Amino acid sequence: MSDTALVIFTPSGKRGHVAIGTPVLTAARQLGVDLDSVCGGRGICSKCQVSPGLGDFPKHGVTVTETALSDWNAVEARYDEKRGLKPGRRLGCQATIQGDVVIDVPPESQVHKQVVRKAAATRDITMDPATRLYYTQVREPDMHEPTGDLQRLAEALARDWDLPGLTASPRLLAKLQTALRKGDWNVTVAVWQDHRGGTPKLIDIWPGYFEGRLYGLAIDLGSTTIAAHLCDLRNGQVAASAGVMNPQIRFGEDLMSRVSFAMMNAGGASEMTTAVHGAMTQLATELAVEADIPSDQIVEVVVVCNPVMHHLLLGIDPVELGQAPFALATSDAVNTDAREIGLTGINPDAQAYMLPCIAGHVGADCAAVALSEEPYKSEDLVLICDVGTNAEILLGTSEKVLACSSPTGPAFEGAQISSGQRAAPGAIERVEIDPATKEPRFRVIGSDLWSDEDGFEAATAASGITGICGSGIIEAVAEMRIAGLLDPSGLIGSAEATGTSRAIPDGRTFAYVLHDGTADGGPLITVTQGDIRAIQLAKSALYAGARLLMDELGTDTVDRVVLAGAFGAHISPKHAMVLGMIPDCTLEHVTSAGNAAGTGARIALCDISARARIETEVTRIEKVETAIEPRFQEHFVAANAIPHATAPFAELSKVVTLPTPSFNSGPSGDSGRRRRRRS
Amino acid sequence: MSDTALVIFTPSGKRGHVAIGTPVLTAARQLGVDLDSVCGGRGICSKCQVSPGLGDFPKHGVTVTETALSDWNAVEARYDEKRGLKPGRRLGCQATIQGDVVIDVPPESQVHKQVVRKAAATRDITMDPATRLYYTQVREPDMHEPTGDLQRLAEALARDWDLPGLTASPRLLAKLQTALRKGDWNVTVAVWQDHRGGTPKLIDIWPGYFEGRLYGLAIDLGSTTIAAHLCDLRNGQVAASAGVMNPQIRFGEDLMSRVSFAMMNAGGASEMTTAVHGAMTQLATELAVEADIPSDQIVEVVVVCNPVMHHLLLGIDPVELGQAPFALATSDAVNTDAREIGLTGINPDAQAYMLPCIAGHVGADCAAVALSEEPYKSEDLVLICDVGTNAEILLGTSEKVLACSSPTGPAFEGAQISSGQRAAPGAIERVEIDPATKEPRFRVIGSDLWSDEDGFEAATAASGITGICGSGIIEAVAEMRIAGLLDPSGLIGSAEATGTSRAIPDGRTFAYVLHDGTADGGPLITVTQGDIRAIQLAKSALYAGARLLMDELGTDTVDRVVLAGAFGAHISPKHAMVLGMIPDCTLEHVTSAGNAAGTGARIALCDISARARIETEVTRIEKVETAIEPRFQEHFVAANAIPHATAPFAELSKVVTLPTPSFNSGPSGDSGRRRRRRS
Repeated sequence: MSDTALVIFTPSGKRGHVAIGTPVLTAARQLGVDLDSVCGGRGICSKCQVSPGLGDFPKHGVTVTETALSDWNAVEARYDEKRGLKPGRRLGCQATIQGDVVIDVPPESQVHKQVVRKAAATRDITMDPATRLYYTQVREPDMHEPTGDLQRLAEALARDWDLPGLTASPRLLAKLQTALRKGDWNVTVAVWQDHRGGTPKLIDIWPGYFEGRLYGLAIDLGSTTIAAHLCDLRNGQVAASAGVMNPQIRFGEDLMSRVSFAMMNAGGASEMTTAVHGAMTQLATELAVEADIPSDQIVEVVVVCNPVMHHLLLGIDPVELGQAPFALATSDAVNTDAREIGLTGINPDAQAYMLPCIAGHVGADCAAVALSEEPYKSEDLVLICDVGTNAEILLGTSEKVLACSSPTGPAFEGAQISSGQRAAPGAIERVEIDPATKEPRFRVIGSDLWSDEDGFEAATAASGITGICGSGIIEAVAEMRIAGLLDPSGLIGSAEATGTSRAIPDGRTFAYVLHDGTADGGPLITVTQGDIRAIQLAKSALYAGARLLMDELGTDTVDRVVLAGAFGAHISPKHAMVLGMIPDCTLEHVTSAGNAAGTGARIALCDISARARIETEVTRIEKVETAIEPRFQEHFVAANAIPHATAPFAELSKVVTLPTPSFNSGPSGDSGRRRRRRS
Repeated sequence: MSDTALVIFTPSGKRGHVAIGTPVLTAARQLGVDLDSVCGGRGICSKCQVSPGLGDFPKHGVTVTETALSDWNAVEARYDEKRGLKPGRRLGCQATIQGDVVIDVPPESQVHKQVVRKAAATRDITMDPATRLYYTQVREPDMHEPTGDLQRLAEALARDWDLPGLTASPRLLAKLQTALRKGDWNVTVAVWQDHRGGTPKLIDIWPGYFEGRLYGLAIDLGSTTIAAHLCDLRNGQVAASAGVMNPQIRFGEDLMSRVSFAMMNAGGASEMTTAVHGAMTQLATELAVEADIPSDQIVEVVVVCNPVMHHLLLGIDPVELGQAPFALATSDAVNTDAREIGLTGINPDAQAYMLPCIAGHVGADCAAVALSEEPYKSEDLVLICDVGTNAEILLGTSEKVLACSSPTGPAFEGAQISSGQRAAPGAIERVEIDPATKEPRFRVIGSDLWSDEDGFEAATAASGITGICGSGIIEAVAEMRIAGLLDPSGLIGSAEATGTSRAIPDGRTFAYVLHDGTADGGPLITVTQGDIRAIQLAKSALYAGARLLMDELGTDTVDRVVLAGAFGAHISPKHAMVLGMIPDCTLEHVTSAGNAAGTGARIALCDISARARIETEVTRIEKVETAIEPRFQEHFVAANAIPHATAPFAELSKVVTLPTPSFNSGPSGDSGRRRRRRS
């Protein structure tokens, strides 16, 4: 054993004997330790930095002397001089093992770095992206053994990085020759290889050692909004985020309107495809500018979306998704060139990945939510509602997961609401109504102050108070119900019935004035009877979908509820429960996952094993089709009411006089409206 | 054995026992007999027709009775009624085996049909194209088990045709859904699968049983001309052929001029790429029109070309090919979408295959010649010269094959010749000169008559006599030498020296009048001293290349010579030998292979196993680089003379007087010209 030494790596604790003279990087690889290297041990990239320990390590049973590693060599000295090496650090590819040693791998030298999610529930994402940088040295051409530059590059990558069978597009063949010569046969390449173990693809090439980074786009392509995160593929960090309205809205606000547009207009589908391609390209360009990175360093894209958006993005007429049996053109995950889905302005060889669709109405977005929230690993029964223009609903445990989609419509996103608007500065996002005085107070996006607090006016002067966003309308409706401004059927009471002058006539019904800015030339922001009806329809659809899955599983209760969606982070669980959006559950078990679909897209962008995982899990998820399930309609109708009321509603209702509707707590549903009309 | 029967298939002679009741098609598959089927045994395609024998077959030791096969069934009766079945024919998928039987598989029912080459040396091409039609029945979508249409199609192809893992482009996903429903879940698909056994690719889809055929393009992309054959992928037959000038000629007539153009002009390479893409697309369109087929039924393309054209076609700057070590960007065969090499106007998902390059100066065209002429299977030592703007030369036997390329220039193609023109109607292609009278006679393309035969004028009235093509100039020069009009150094004698008024002054040298059409407003067609020099340079380059390979192999003789090239079919071996184009060889061992590169392209188009074969053989071929080999220059200089003379040249030379050059048979090379200049 005298010609070997014991090496212990921390923090992994991996240990073993290696031959004296083995470089630390080689030892790490032999022992399966996670130590990074881009240049393949040539002392260029410095990614393999380690910190050897000195002294007694009783825990490990070794004493490390100063001679445990080889002396600094010329490469390390040059590197330190040029770029500086932190005290105590060594280059793992240069330092060789001379005796028993404990070696710490600092976080930045670990390939599979752990990044912490920003959302409430922290979760680790393993970094294992499909496209990575590799530095390599290519044999020079030899007239007497005439092989192509590509073949010699492929040979080098097979030798240095165990990546055999490299392929390259003609565009890259053109670039290859210059890069190899400019770098004096040393190049850095970006190579894509997926989780299925197919042949690696050359994505880009740079002469010598490339200092830049690779980026990916995680795109949540919603019916109403398109949100994208630009992520650093080295550590998963979000370099920039942006969102735009989906330009397809002009062809129809909800999915079925767009399917109809495609059915009724020749070329309609391709018109919508072109529109969304343009918006995505614009978004990508904006993100590159915002993060100040060269756009050709964006080499990967992951897109999650519902099946209709999925088909329109791929240029497939979505007409089959508009009628039973709602057949998808393709249900599997899609791997393709990003330019095939119209994404230009990024690296021309960038690859795109779309998560699998679960069913004709349950898309890649739902798969992404599943990837993010992992109901298939849950020990208790979890209900996950991804609230958008369509709600994707998952219910289950590690034993069984069910999924469905429910057409909530765009009301939850502030669309089809009289004073509705996107979540942007100036939008009312939080609402409280005093049950006694019926006076509201609210907060707008861009300020942390409530409207009755000092400085509110100054804080909102720039944005103004412009409308109500999705979370704002939900709170407003719930607070109106709590304050007794609505009856269980959802009817707004008159000023007389409710005792506040904020209830004003609005045609044949009433509206509640949330904010009157007309004196300053601003808008009159009200919640109308139409708004209440839109929210009722939306929340009934969501609730009915959840109930349907609960029926399928034979349960009346769930252990916890996760609210997700572009604005999921902003819904107040209390108000969601007041509205009857979700089944009853103790409030502390209702959490928000933020934009879980977007998080799922980020996970798939950063980790190809996650792609493999969700592709498998998706086949295990049982699909429930709401559109043909009679019980969905029953639940939908039954869920229309807003039963909760903390205000002494029954009393209030006694004082109403016709033609103002009666506010009794009797049968809910449309009974209130019917009675009103009879009157 | 009473529940089995003996089945003997002819012409293969394959035999075996199968269970009574086995369909003939199934029996054929069990016994490895080549029996076609597109519809997979559904009685639709009729490709599996067989002819059962009746009576005694002493050779096979069986007697076949009328009950050996099942009676005609309803499917056969319907087929016969609708489309007609030849007498004695049965559908192999319907007829079942009831007793011992001899079954003949007619040629048209054999999958691997044999096609006979049109060229002199007949040779069989096995039909096994990469893209084929398959008929299949796809499961209908099921809401309760929601898989995509693509996944169910893939499942059907895996089940019926052993083609697992089908992939499809987004464009085809869009087409898929309509086709499946229109065909009531029965479709015909064109599927590509290469010889490497990768995943099959969907190329196109049609509802129901598709009656059409698939076609491929075999393109010989030369420096001067682009020739293409449109081939039926079912039987390899050429449906149409066409050629156009390579539009890159305007950037430089020879390859090195084009490389220079790319070096000297920013964007020069891409300008040339665009030009050749356009010409190929135009050619494809013309061929589809000529053959009267829908252009989207062209689903495959094979391109052969020299390395410079190869790189320019792929959009790669060819500058590296212009300087040692002549490094190729890629040497392996290229598989790509046809649109990646600029071919549009055919099926948008058509696949392209480019044969491997052998070396920086020895391209895919040479590989195609090797595939066509198979020197690696030859028992005697064969020299193959593919004559074009560059000559590709192969020398060897089954034990060893050498290859090189030689820059002959465009003279052999009629370019840079004073009266030169492309091989087209009106071009002089055959020449004879009477050694006594020095009078010529000739034939022009478009007529079988010699110019001194009756009816020649009428026969050529339409085309006129417009110039000399490549084969014509070779014959003219050789005949001039035989008739004593040239001395061994290649100098044209004066009228006095040669005794014919057809030798006319032309500047400081002389020219020989082949045809004077000026009286009728036609051209004066002469062979000038410059023409002789151009042919001398070309033939010296060709000869020097061949000699260099012979040196490498340590031989002074070859057993046989094969002349190939776009005009290879038209070179007269006798005249080639007189000129000293090729090493001496008995005349009957000099054959012409026609456009062997084009034939190689056709073979690769029709048979994927040929692709595998040439990819392997190419790695075994030894490359010799003429550009850096001093002996090439030596051979080149030494080969400049035209030694052969049947006329009493020495005598003639004696009578010449200055300033007419002396016609001695002294040192050849440029000596004649130098002497002339001194004079």
